[in-house]
Amino acid sequence: MSDVLGADTTLADLPLREDLRGRSPYGAPQLATSVRLNTNENPYPPPPELVADVTEAVREVAAELHRYPDRDAVALRGDLAAYLGEATGIGLSVQNLWAANGSNEVLQQILQAFGGPGRSALGFEPSYSMHPILSAGTRTDWVPAPRRPDFSLDGAAAARTVAEKQPSVVFVTSPNNPTGQAVSIEDLRAICEAAPGVVVVDEAYAEFSAQPSAVELIEQYPAKVIVSRTMSKAFAFAGGRLGYLAAAPAIIDALLLVRLPYHLSAPTQAAARAALRHAEATLGSVHKLAAERDRVVGELRELGFEPVPSDANFVLFGPFAEAHRAWERYLDSDVLIRDVGIPGHLRVTIGTPDENDAFLAASKAVSEEIQR
Amino acid sequence: MSDVLGADTTLADLPLREDLRGRSPYGAPQLATSVRLNTNENPYPPPPELVADVTEAVREVAAELHRYPDRDAVALRGDLAAYLGEATGIGLSVQNLWAANGSNEVLQQILQAFGGPGRSALGFEPSYSMHPILSAGTRTDWVPAPRRPDFSLDGAAAARTVAEKQPSVVFVTSPNNPTGQAVSIEDLRAICEAAPGVVVVDEAYAEFSAQPSAVELIEQYPAKVIVSRTMSKAFAFAGGRLGYLAAAPAIIDALLLVRLPYHLSAPTQAAARAALRHAEATLGSVHKLAAERDRVVGELRELGFEPVPSDANFVLFGPFAEAHRAWERYLDSDVLIRDVGIPGHLRVTIGTPDENDAFLAASKAVSEEIQR
Repeated sequence: MSDVLGADTTLADLPLREDLRGRSPYGAPQLATSVRLNTNENPYPPPPELVADVTEAVREVAAELHRYPDRDAVALRGDLAAYLGEATGIGLSVQNLWAANGSNEVLQQILQAFGGPGRSALGFEPSYSMHPILSAGTRTDWVPAPRRPDFSLDGAAAARTVAEKQPSVVFVTSPNNPTGQAVSIEDLRAICEAAPGVVVVDEAYAEFSAQPSAVELIEQYPAKVIVSRTMSKAFAFAGGRLGYLAAAPAIIDALLLVRLPYHLSAPTQAAARAALRHAEATLGSVHKLAAERDRVVGELRELGFEPVPSDANFVLFGPFAEAHRAWERYLDSDVLIRDVGIPGHLRVTIGTPDENDAFLAASKAVSEEIQR
Repeated sequence: MSDVLGADTTLADLPLREDLRGRSPYGAPQLATSVRLNTNENPYPPPPELVADVTEAVREVAAELHRYPDRDAVALRGDLAAYLGEATGIGLSVQNLWAANGSNEVLQQILQAFGGPGRSALGFEPSYSMHPILSAGTRTDWVPAPRRPDFSLDGAAAARTVAEKQPSVVFVTSPNNPTGQAVSIEDLRAICEAAPGVVVVDEAYAEFSAQPSAVELIEQYPAKVIVSRTMSKAFAFAGGRLGYLAAAPAIIDALLLVRLPYHLSAPTQAAARAALRHAEATLGSVHKLAAERDRVVGELRELGFEPVPSDANFVLFGPFAEAHRAWERYLDSDVLIRDVGIPGHLRVTIGTPDENDAFLAASKAVSEEIQR
């Protein structure tokens, strides 16, 4: 008998929902390796000026921690509108923006408002594995749709599938995680034309891509297009948990009906606003990472691998006869990458030049040892 | 035509879920009055040592903001286990604790795991209005059950109702918001005996009460009892958004299946840990507030009002012929209290002595002017 209170009771003893029985929690293994290239984090720490500014911003709100934060995060949404408006060249106002604790919460709120029991969400697989998990969590039926064998999206085929399946929510990840390719505005337009419900363009990695943002489609499809973003990747703010979206104001009105009141803490709002003031410096790392990505892709090719073209800060590559065995082999070299469950492939996040060199050295060893 | 992008599209144009149509967002009016006694906040700002410690803690994690936070918040949960174990006298370990962005998120996760479509949640009304809203948000059928006319809970009747209705989730708020009374361990035990599913004892205001905590029932009912708490009230940490619960480890395993990965930011985890280190100082305000509560109750009685006995940091009182008109009359006196929708009653949060004096002065004026 354990001395932890209640430890003799197991999951099987609980009145758990039947559809959750036998499931495992989501999450990449967090292992203590020298080189961690597994969760698409930005390898560059925040600059000292940003750390100082975030700290000062939190000091200011800490004196008022006994009060609830601004429930609607108006100041933060205004700052996000200014940033995203400048980044995309599309005029956005505070009423076009919404924010939550990571883009996962943003996506969950969208499914609560527009999906749910008796409705379905469709995505083009392989893609971000949280989309079907969030759908399950909101009891939205998940409809998987295919990509081309090279993992790119066939816009015309995608639109036909959407027209046939009539999902309430369509997810298009651009650039796509874990495969890397961005989707063209023309292909997105074809999907919007076919979609009976909302089209969520998940642009978590957009800053790494040269493709224009789907924000420009909001004007044409205001009742359909939702563009989700995150500060986790390009902004190097994964620890701060700030996801956001741009859409027509009515979409945000709908999300207000399902959001938890006071969902965003005062320190989170203050820290994110401080980080946004340093956008120019932080986004400088984006160009470095894009150049490193192109170098890694080139060297992987030279080693005989077949990397998938990427617009993001990661690269899917193969082929491996046994991807998981290859993943373990990288781990033996103290390099943690990600087995995303695509047969014959692994995904590596682009790190610092040194980290990428370590990964490429391990790749050379792996390519010589492992059957492919 | 508005110049806000997409502003001509309205909620009616959207493919919103039918069950959300016509609803309004949750939330007390946030008005700029001199005396704000409407959301049960703690009126005492954090002491300077806490502000300094929170700031320093956030400075430390800010340098690592490019990395994801600890997904399972193990250090924070350990600190919460130590605090709650000492407060209740029941030995608790990190495996007994879970935390999220406010107790609303904790409760939502419980409903996702143990409620949902085809299941029901029962609560004794009037009670915390978020319980039915969270149930609706997770498509859990809401079953309202009654209290006595004086708003206290009749334990035997409650157990009979639970046995009859067979809800998957029972909410018992103790002390109850917005009425103030705590529930005895004997009554909770009767409800646990009758419940076929989980029993959530919402102890958001427990620190203000002399009643023992339901944490002592976890050993006897490990597959049923979940005790939720918050740092918003007694800890004066409403702006930090930290809710938590204590339960058997298997309950927490179940919540891991539905929680959003990385739901708690690194600054939130660090700030909450820093605030917990100052528990003794912060909780000092609890005794002051309890004494003020008893003074306010006494003076309201002298003015001819009938306050409901309260174990919390607020008081429900009446009678008013028209509660909303009386609420507006308080507002005319620059005192913001809460119309919680109970006919003939209003709720006032206990503030500083000066704020309570302002409220009592307004009450005197109201009692002379308003028909009751």
